[in-house]
Amino acid sequence: MGAMSNSCVAVVGATGAVGREMVAQLHERSFPASEVKLLASSRSKGQKLRLGDELLTVDEATPASFAGVDLVLMSAGASVARELAPAAARAGAVVVDNSSAFRQDPDVPLVVPEVNAHALRSVPRGIIANPNCSTIQMVVALAPLHREARVRRIVVSTYQSVSGAGWKAMEELRRGCADVLVGREPVAEVFPHPIALDCIPQIAAFEPDGYTVEEHKMIFETHKILEDPSIAITATCVRVPVMRGHSEAVLIETERPLGAERARELLRGAEGVVLIDDPARKLYPLARSAAGTGPVYVGRIRPDTSSEHGLWLWVVADNLLKGAALNAVQIAERLRAG
Amino acid sequence: MGAMSNSCVAVVGATGAVGREMVAQLHERSFPASEVKLLASSRSKGQKLRLGDELLTVDEATPASFAGVDLVLMSAGASVARELAPAAARAGAVVVDNSSAFRQDPDVPLVVPEVNAHALRSVPRGIIANPNCSTIQMVVALAPLHREARVRRIVVSTYQSVSGAGWKAMEELRRGCADVLVGREPVAEVFPHPIALDCIPQIAAFEPDGYTVEEHKMIFETHKILEDPSIAITATCVRVPVMRGHSEAVLIETERPLGAERARELLRGAEGVVLIDDPARKLYPLARSAAGTGPVYVGRIRPDTSSEHGLWLWVVADNLLKGAALNAVQIAERLRAG
Repeated sequence: MGAMSNSCVAVVGATGAVGREMVAQLHERSFPASEVKLLASSRSKGQKLRLGDELLTVDEATPASFAGVDLVLMSAGASVARELAPAAARAGAVVVDNSSAFRQDPDVPLVVPEVNAHALRSVPRGIIANPNCSTIQMVVALAPLHREARVRRIVVSTYQSVSGAGWKAMEELRRGCADVLVGREPVAEVFPHPIALDCIPQIAAFEPDGYTVEEHKMIFETHKILEDPSIAITATCVRVPVMRGHSEAVLIETERPLGAERARELLRGAEGVVLIDDPARKLYPLARSAAGTGPVYVGRIRPDTSSEHGLWLWVVADNLLKGAALNAVQIAERLRAG
Repeated sequence: MGAMSNSCVAVVGATGAVGREMVAQLHERSFPASEVKLLASSRSKGQKLRLGDELLTVDEATPASFAGVDLVLMSAGASVARELAPAAARAGAVVVDNSSAFRQDPDVPLVVPEVNAHALRSVPRGIIANPNCSTIQMVVALAPLHREARVRRIVVSTYQSVSGAGWKAMEELRRGCADVLVGREPVAEVFPHPIALDCIPQIAAFEPDGYTVEEHKMIFETHKILEDPSIAITATCVRVPVMRGHSEAVLIETERPLGAERARELLRGAEGVVLIDDPARKLYPLARSAAGTGPVYVGRIRPDTSSEHGLWLWVVADNLLKGAALNAVQIAERLRAG
């Protein structure tokens, strides 16, 4: 990709939970855009969103929306992406798509800039896939350890906030908590069961092998981003009553011995990582503290008591930022840098 | 232990979250007691608690409280237990203690009746230890699989409700949720950080090896109850904003191949277990549904994608009932049966 300057940027799905954060990140990170177009479904047409001091009006996203657009940040779900991303690419734009539509396409790089920015050197379809939120934060934490000691196995259990499922999900948790507090039965519309003060061991649909789509994503995407399908990976993905910020209990086994102290040393200097690992002072990453911030936080690093070269990590990040909008904008920044 | 009939039963810590459930379980399960004495700290003296139709007055628990008492159900914390349990035993009572005070004592059986009731044949100190809540539900689910295929490794991440930390903890979650809903900062007094809509990867204090006391309990107690210290075990224990009911993502590796279908078959017939494992209908165990009920619920059984003879299970139980009060009363019932 050549460097772009003063590019025209479109955000598709701009009114969604991730889309709004994309718009905010463009502004906060002073992304050099000559123009920002906000696009969404016909339902959101005419809504106004703030971008710094400007008030922008949302247009309907159609295949014809992308004339003159250089960069598209898309967060509109897989079926919309399958229609609009190729249309935008045909119109000459580079698309960073946040849906799962293209992640498995071998001609679409799946990128976490701290980990595999080099994959941006070839974008044959004009589309770059933004990985799943739970995968991004895990690979940011594991990549430096993988480089040093070669990760051979990953066992991860997640504690994922509701914001990954959008505005309605956050409202469902809010209303559900209020219901539970007054002794009313909470209602489930977005989630398969009420999420208010409960943990639901299902994120997305089930596959025939008993895993959910979310769990499959963590396996496939980690293989693709770390460019090592030989890593044995398994996952249990769980929705928890948290508004924003995903937490993960990650157990790794490495080929070469690593040790907690060396892992801390590596992560202390790692791009995009903040180490919070001081148990004596009760300091470790927490979702509520991570919410609204960009880094991936890692703590509770300790040797696995059940394997020879194993280590536990507790990994937390804001799923809407590093897990989605921020990572997408960081990809766009790398594209500009060329 | 010989059979007891019309025994005089004392509940120590009767006003606590677990103590109240002990009193309720004695009544619900028609435990044949000639008399039930309710004991607690001096602060609770004079409080009245309902036992069926009776209203009983709480007395202060002292070493002299146990004259004529046959059975003591104790849920008063480790330091109180270290004083009062031996006093009760000296007075001739058998004590089922819910604290961690005696669990590691080789002369104190640590019992989950479905798993190792035979350990009740020898109670040299007159004290039986009730295991930790998170351990009980896990071993009830794993024992039938261990018998069949020999569990060689356990990796568990927990999702533990606040009620394990008592009344004040439940009130802290309730108040914290109300605070968050109106945009106020929630307060942490019981927990190291606000638990309202967050996950805290710390239960109890940290040990020098970076694990918490709770995580150590899961390792040590599982070894003792399954009578197999050769099982490799590791745990991450996490407090979640749930009132009642612990959930656990448990990964096991077995010596002999087992398979999800055979595991389901074994658990369908297992004592104390209810299998809820129908992903196509979005059915799996949930803490809110388990709350107030006795069984250990197991679901999401599926092969581990990262090991040869591995299986995942999602294990849920009411931590105050099977995880504490019910297990204690079930121990007492086995003692009576002799």
